[in-house]
Amino acid sequence: MKKKDNKSALQEVAGVENIQRLNRNILPQKRQRVDTTQYVKRILAGDKIYLSKAITLIESQNRKRFDLGQKILKALLPHTGNSVRIGITGVPGVGKSTFIESLGKYYTSQGHKVAVLAIDPSSSLTKGSILGDKTRMEQLSKDPRAYIRPTASGDQLGGVARKTRESILLCEAAGFDRILIETVGVGQSETMVAQMVDFFLLLKLAGAGDELQGIKRGIIEMADLIVINKAEGDNLQPAKLAQKAFQTALHYFPPKKSGWLPKVLLSSALYNKGIKEVVNEIDTYVKLTRKNDFFVQNRLAQDTYWLQEFVKQTILDNFYKNSKYFEFLPKMIKKINKRQITVFEAAEFLLNLQNQ
Amino acid sequence: MKKKDNKSALQEVAGVENIQRLNRNILPQKRQRVDTTQYVKRILAGDKIYLSKAITLIESQNRKRFDLGQKILKALLPHTGNSVRIGITGVPGVGKSTFIESLGKYYTSQGHKVAVLAIDPSSSLTKGSILGDKTRMEQLSKDPRAYIRPTASGDQLGGVARKTRESILLCEAAGFDRILIETVGVGQSETMVAQMVDFFLLLKLAGAGDELQGIKRGIIEMADLIVINKAEGDNLQPAKLAQKAFQTALHYFPPKKSGWLPKVLLSSALYNKGIKEVVNEIDTYVKLTRKNDFFVQNRLAQDTYWLQEFVKQTILDNFYKNSKYFEFLPKMIKKINKRQITVFEAAEFLLNLQNQ
Repeated sequence: MKKKDNKSALQEVAGVENIQRLNRNILPQKRQRVDTTQYVKRILAGDKIYLSKAITLIESQNRKRFDLGQKILKALLPHTGNSVRIGITGVPGVGKSTFIESLGKYYTSQGHKVAVLAIDPSSSLTKGSILGDKTRMEQLSKDPRAYIRPTASGDQLGGVARKTRESILLCEAAGFDRILIETVGVGQSETMVAQMVDFFLLLKLAGAGDELQGIKRGIIEMADLIVINKAEGDNLQPAKLAQKAFQTALHYFPPKKSGWLPKVLLSSALYNKGIKEVVNEIDTYVKLTRKNDFFVQNRLAQDTYWLQEFVKQTILDNFYKNSKYFEFLPKMIKKINKRQITVFEAAEFLLNLQNQ
Repeated sequence: MKKKDNKSALQEVAGVENIQRLNRNILPQKRQRVDTTQYVKRILAGDKIYLSKAITLIESQNRKRFDLGQKILKALLPHTGNSVRIGITGVPGVGKSTFIESLGKYYTSQGHKVAVLAIDPSSSLTKGSILGDKTRMEQLSKDPRAYIRPTASGDQLGGVARKTRESILLCEAAGFDRILIETVGVGQSETMVAQMVDFFLLLKLAGAGDELQGIKRGIIEMADLIVINKAEGDNLQPAKLAQKAFQTALHYFPPKKSGWLPKVLLSSALYNKGIKEVVNEIDTYVKLTRKNDFFVQNRLAQDTYWLQEFVKQTILDNFYKNSKYFEFLPKMIKKINKRQITVFEAAEFLLNLQNQ
């Protein structure tokens, strides 16, 4: 019964695109099949070069290459999921790359395979690019058990999210069991990252300065662990005070669905201090949430969330692209501000643009 | 130049609906015009019965009555905006209605006119309805300077938001200069309320119990003021402790765009204690944000937000209604969870439903 549903649903999808597919595949079909098999085999063997090539396909704007990426991903799906996905955020200057390098090295020394991915929607707009330069994590990038992939960026947040999520799956298929996803504490990138990881870690600095660096409201509530970094030298005492204060503050937050109580730890990534404690904390979290089933349920909820998000975003993008919405939006806002029309009238006008 | 743009844009709107309007208005046109004038005149004179009738029109599902409501609202637009819009939230049991009655009475005693509106998206689904019964605010409801409107609820959150926002405008046109908008701390209602008020007040109780009553994460960060209610008798000491702790906690939040530093106050609404201090706090906030222009800019930003929200929601609703989206969504989720298809494939399938 269910099998049948599966089939008919997929046949419908196939049906719609059948003609295009046929046209497209007359010649390259055979070669492509070989390619897919080769990719799948190499990635399952942990080949980083093929992993990189597959991620590039996933990110490709070229439809043929994009489709090949999707085929590879689909073939690898049964081999995905076997990792702990860890999101790491913090404002620039907090020491993210040093921390990630330190954490990554610790994991590889324990026999884990570590992949580092990054989300940075701002990189195309501003100077700041995270992970643009692999040399920032010199030691980790030389580690045979580590894989570092520079930032997926460029287009809208929705596109970045899809690419990153699919890259996670490819890394998992290649045997990486600790996936670190780095993001900066601006825009909506952390909310996005929080929606695709098992564990969300917020890096902070001691002192009020950090609060003024533009970290977004709400991030503290998303964190499963706050780490006060650069707890070294003269900074150690202020860091301890900040730790205490944050711990008190966290006490007044509503409880998490995971049943987890977030802690505040200190680290000095530069001197490899506090890293082991962070790893222990993550391990404890995974144990707890595996036991109470939140780990699995959360991943299912995330898939559901992203499916609905992608559909929504595509529908809205189609409307925005195919209408004069952005031309008339500022005009409508001006009229509303002058109290000439109601918001409802303005909305009706913008919606009617679709039919013109 | 601008005038011309206004006209042509509105003419386009009119053009699209011209034929429908003509058909509809052949007979009732004259009567409707009289109605509108009468409504406008009576509402500007502060007539609560006409205000109630106009809000009912705004909420109407009947297109003709709905249009009449929009006409009245549009005619009143130049007379709107002259109020302080205050959102008040807190979990059930925190003493919201007693607090609002106390606050409302204080305002009317100072010569203000107070309107109380409520948002309760849950009322149609669960037993809990806020303000469903006017007698909960017995004194305030008898006050000639106060107006209490039971909850707008029923359909989607987007509809509730529009109705509440338009009701605020009607109340302002009727001369109410303090608008209190009540909501419960569940679902997305407070995020919605926070997006339509000038000042957002969170009611809390001393003790950890409140945290466990299902208040949503993120609300604390939205608050411009936290009031620990029921700070009376045996509860006074715990309330003072909670006050101190929250004040410390707030210190660790990122600064607000308004430049405002949220405080934590105590109140005993039952004994009318602490209300004056709350009013002073709101006054100080309004003074500050009027001076730094946040007050006005925030309202403009809210209008822009709601305009875009209404457009988005309508487009998505149309898709959901006109496709088998909700029929196939669970099937797609099942396939994703079984790792049979990628999220992207599932999204493509759901999007293709539109064209079938």
